[in-house]
Amino acid sequence: MPTYRIDLGYDGSGFHGFARNHGVRTVQGDLEEALTTITGIEITTVVAGRTDAGVHAKGQVVSFDIDTAIEVDRVWRSLRSMLGPEIAAHRVTEVVGGFSARFSARLRTYRYSIDEAPVPDPLARSSVWHVGEPLDLDAMNQAATAFVGTHDFASLCRAQEAKSTERTVARAVWTHRGALLVFEVEAKAFCHQMVRSMVALCVDVGRGRVAANEVPGILEAKDRNAARGAAPPHGLVLWEVEY
Amino acid sequence: MPTYRIDLGYDGSGFHGFARNHGVRTVQGDLEEALTTITGIEITTVVAGRTDAGVHAKGQVVSFDIDTAIEVDRVWRSLRSMLGPEIAAHRVTEVVGGFSARFSARLRTYRYSIDEAPVPDPLARSSVWHVGEPLDLDAMNQAATAFVGTHDFASLCRAQEAKSTERTVARAVWTHRGALLVFEVEAKAFCHQMVRSMVALCVDVGRGRVAANEVPGILEAKDRNAARGAAPPHGLVLWEVEY
Repeated sequence: MPTYRIDLGYDGSGFHGFARNHGVRTVQGDLEEALTTITGIEITTVVAGRTDAGVHAKGQVVSFDIDTAIEVDRVWRSLRSMLGPEIAAHRVTEVVGGFSARFSARLRTYRYSIDEAPVPDPLARSSVWHVGEPLDLDAMNQAATAFVGTHDFASLCRAQEAKSTERTVARAVWTHRGALLVFEVEAKAFCHQMVRSMVALCVDVGRGRVAANEVPGILEAKDRNAARGAAPPHGLVLWEVEY
Repeated sequence: MPTYRIDLGYDGSGFHGFARNHGVRTVQGDLEEALTTITGIEITTVVAGRTDAGVHAKGQVVSFDIDTAIEVDRVWRSLRSMLGPEIAAHRVTEVVGGFSARFSARLRTYRYSIDEAPVPDPLARSSVWHVGEPLDLDAMNQAATAFVGTHDFASLCRAQEAKSTERTVARAVWTHRGALLVFEVEAKAFCHQMVRSMVALCVDVGRGRVAANEVPGILEAKDRNAARGAAPPHGLVLWEVEY
């Protein structure tokens, strides 16, 4: 049974998230509908990162198994013409059997962009969170350091019953990129709303509302109410997935 | 009579250009309507760069004279809340009498962004021209060099009867900025569609359809038909105006 991989990016603004969901427009819905039209076979994809409504992707990966071989170049060309400008199909490739975009992933990288300027940039408004005040970068990096390593991230995840919220963060750094403040965070896996919750907490540290040295205690509390909610979805991009 | 200056940026996608035009949405229309509502005085603005439909601005400047002094901070705050996310009013300042956003400008800078990648980036689709093939940067820079200096740009301007098309270009350079190819061009003044016509010609040089050493002859022809039309508006940004 051949296995295929699609690398894609999208502007999440007009989608109710990645995951197929009856009656609303989703990236998976559009993608699977196109794949089924092109191949004549009902296709169900597995995804590296189930992004929420409004979240974008630059290096998203999906995979699927089907019982007939497909011509990857033809499928790629057809996808490009069918998907519209909100979704970019970068590549369609045949991969080794057993590959899963979800379970084979070794490292996922997310980026979150913030604008400190008093007036938001109209051209960046769908992909940058306009905080609109200067933030303390050093304090935010001190806060981010507390995320690195293996922790129970219950304080920074939307609860999903009976699921572990222990995760291992490999890297979490704030940097200036041009006029923006950008958070880059890497982990094998994230729990739901984890990156946006990290960002909300770091921003409150950057504003001076939370001290950076309080962050380890907030993690140890393992209580979502101890944290600062979630930053808006539109500043977040699933940047890259490594296998 | 006090004179005021407004520095602003906008996403030109949803506007039929800058200039007020009855029955359609324009940047000047929105701005003057807001200014009149805020001040109770009918205000007519003068602009540094009359951008076409779909063209963006980062550092646009307008000015106006009125017979009553206004509180610039209050006007700025009101503008920010009234204008919506497509227009950013960066500053409102009182300036010396006789200042004109249009006639006092010493240098105007435009940027044009191009994506060579095979698949367009969904997040950049409203501000980057997706050419989708590799272009010869050196040849494009050789072509751009021919624009620098004082020339009759009739070949690269949309004809406006009885108006001179002689202009002096101070700088015209193509560079890689991240994944994009960016044209930056500076002049005291440009004629209509001049930057987009330069871009279209350079891109055809970059594709190998026109030789870089043919560009001086195309300028000397002083004939719009000798050139290569105009690049799409959405890749263009009025970047900065110096006084």
